[in-house]
Amino acid sequence: MSRLGAVPFPNRVEIIEVGPRDGLQRESTIVSMQDKVALIEALVNAGLKRIQVTSFVHPKWVPQMADAEEVCARIPEEPGVIYSGLALNLKGVERARSAGLRAIDISVSASDAHSRKNANRSRAEALEEFKDMYASAREFGMAVRGGIQCAFGYLKAGDVERETVIEIAREHLELGVDELALADTSGVANPAQVVDLVGAVVPLAGERPVILHLHDTRGMGLANVLAALGSGVRHFDTAFGGLGGCPFIQGATGNIATEDTAHMLHAMGIETGVDLSKLSRVSSRFERILGKLSMPGKLYQLLAPDVETLTRTSRD
Amino acid sequence: MSRLGAVPFPNRVEIIEVGPRDGLQRESTIVSMQDKVALIEALVNAGLKRIQVTSFVHPKWVPQMADAEEVCARIPEEPGVIYSGLALNLKGVERARSAGLRAIDISVSASDAHSRKNANRSRAEALEEFKDMYASAREFGMAVRGGIQCAFGYLKAGDVERETVIEIAREHLELGVDELALADTSGVANPAQVVDLVGAVVPLAGERPVILHLHDTRGMGLANVLAALGSGVRHFDTAFGGLGGCPFIQGATGNIATEDTAHMLHAMGIETGVDLSKLSRVSSRFERILGKLSMPGKLYQLLAPDVETLTRTSRD
Repeated sequence: MSRLGAVPFPNRVEIIEVGPRDGLQRESTIVSMQDKVALIEALVNAGLKRIQVTSFVHPKWVPQMADAEEVCARIPEEPGVIYSGLALNLKGVERARSAGLRAIDISVSASDAHSRKNANRSRAEALEEFKDMYASAREFGMAVRGGIQCAFGYLKAGDVERETVIEIAREHLELGVDELALADTSGVANPAQVVDLVGAVVPLAGERPVILHLHDTRGMGLANVLAALGSGVRHFDTAFGGLGGCPFIQGATGNIATEDTAHMLHAMGIETGVDLSKLSRVSSRFERILGKLSMPGKLYQLLAPDVETLTRTSRD
Repeated sequence: MSRLGAVPFPNRVEIIEVGPRDGLQRESTIVSMQDKVALIEALVNAGLKRIQVTSFVHPKWVPQMADAEEVCARIPEEPGVIYSGLALNLKGVERARSAGLRAIDISVSASDAHSRKNANRSRAEALEEFKDMYASAREFGMAVRGGIQCAFGYLKAGDVERETVIEIAREHLELGVDELALADTSGVANPAQVVDLVGAVVPLAGERPVILHLHDTRGMGLANVLAALGSGVRHFDTAFGGLGGCPFIQGATGNIATEDTAHMLHAMGIETGVDLSKLSRVSSRFERILGKLSMPGKLYQLLAPDVETLTRTSRD
């Protein structure tokens, strides 16, 4: 199969690992700075070339990310590896720059309700601040990824206007972002909607990549990857072990798992550069660090089962 | 989106609920006959029109199904609802007929190794016995579904020859089966392979339905559904809550979840007749009956969270 949609499948897809940020932010077990640095090193060792390492948000709201600066100071520079950080306001951009990051992920929510809950401001206010954040990042010489949260809906699919998303995408692109990211923050997107929205946005972006950020909340994550592949998307955010979720949306669970996504792509003849065995061992180790019985990802449990997982499998 | 592949999407898909058989056979908690009958009634009430209610196999190997006859004797006849049973040998077909079932699911494994482990005979022997089983079922006036287990591989994708599967499909069709079922027994199929194999088999079957039986072992279940929709498949086996798996394949976990599958189809504008709220309550109740913290299905946990699930979600 070389295609399943309007656009032929690519030979290669770029996986952006967001586990250290989106994966950990929702966990109640606070992971030590040392474990985070070791995690990021292990992710690099497993072949990941782009890693979102932290977010620069208020520690009162997201205590897991209180060590953002310390983590950035300790992760080793690696040729060909790009570390990025997420910021929700101007101060966050400045902190990321001071921490030495050269790539910043900034975004606005397409949902006014989500924007008020997640970023404490209306969508219109967020759009205004986005411009200032963009200008500041550019002044610092940072690469800018412009994201749109809740691009497929907030509490349910379609409760955000498609035209609103396209309009924000247009604004981001006119402003000059290097990449566009459409985020299914609540995990409501379905394949038909992905084809529809991505099909409208990819042509607007032209040569600039459109990254898809998917959650597997309703089990449609990899089906949406498949739909997006046929619509011209070549960049996906994923999290090791399928960890993650927005702390401010009830039931908004895990990102699509890096292992499961890369495995499906490999099986379809699409390269990612990810070493599935190595990465599965990372996830298996983190399962223990987080004190979890299991994480949502499936493949790591098959490739690197620890003793506890094996017992569980044979019983279930 | 009206298509994503060679064939336009249908307006309606038929869901075949296999939870009472494939869902329960791997569980260590033996479910009482009364709970099974109540389960099947609840599934009918949730809009399911085809239900695989049990299997007629040796109780020594699959103790969960030891009550096959009693279950069949107690489930209420409902207009428009078809109950079927699975048999692995001639004796199983005779038991199903004596139990009053009018539809039988018989199959052979495309993998010789799996056939020896699952049915205690070589693939060639199984193919011979299949003919006798078919003849016996016809003599009893039963509708026959002819299945091919491990159609996409046994221990890994592609360790079963594509041509072997096509050859068995041809034999089943020539014999006269009413429907063909391709089973991804170990959950190894990927979307490219689904398009390839299903694309070859659907034209052979002509007007006769080709049912796809998928497991979500590696997280590709719904992506495979999407790929199959574009290749002409309109019938899927699913299990409530995503329960299930082959007891004789290590790590071969859950079927694709009925709720998650139907939800994706509905979101794409494809009808199934399944009432997601009602079905989610069934799954939530069974989670408790089986004494599980959770089952693999995702949607039921969002639609019918019990108190324990809610606590878990807010913590994770």
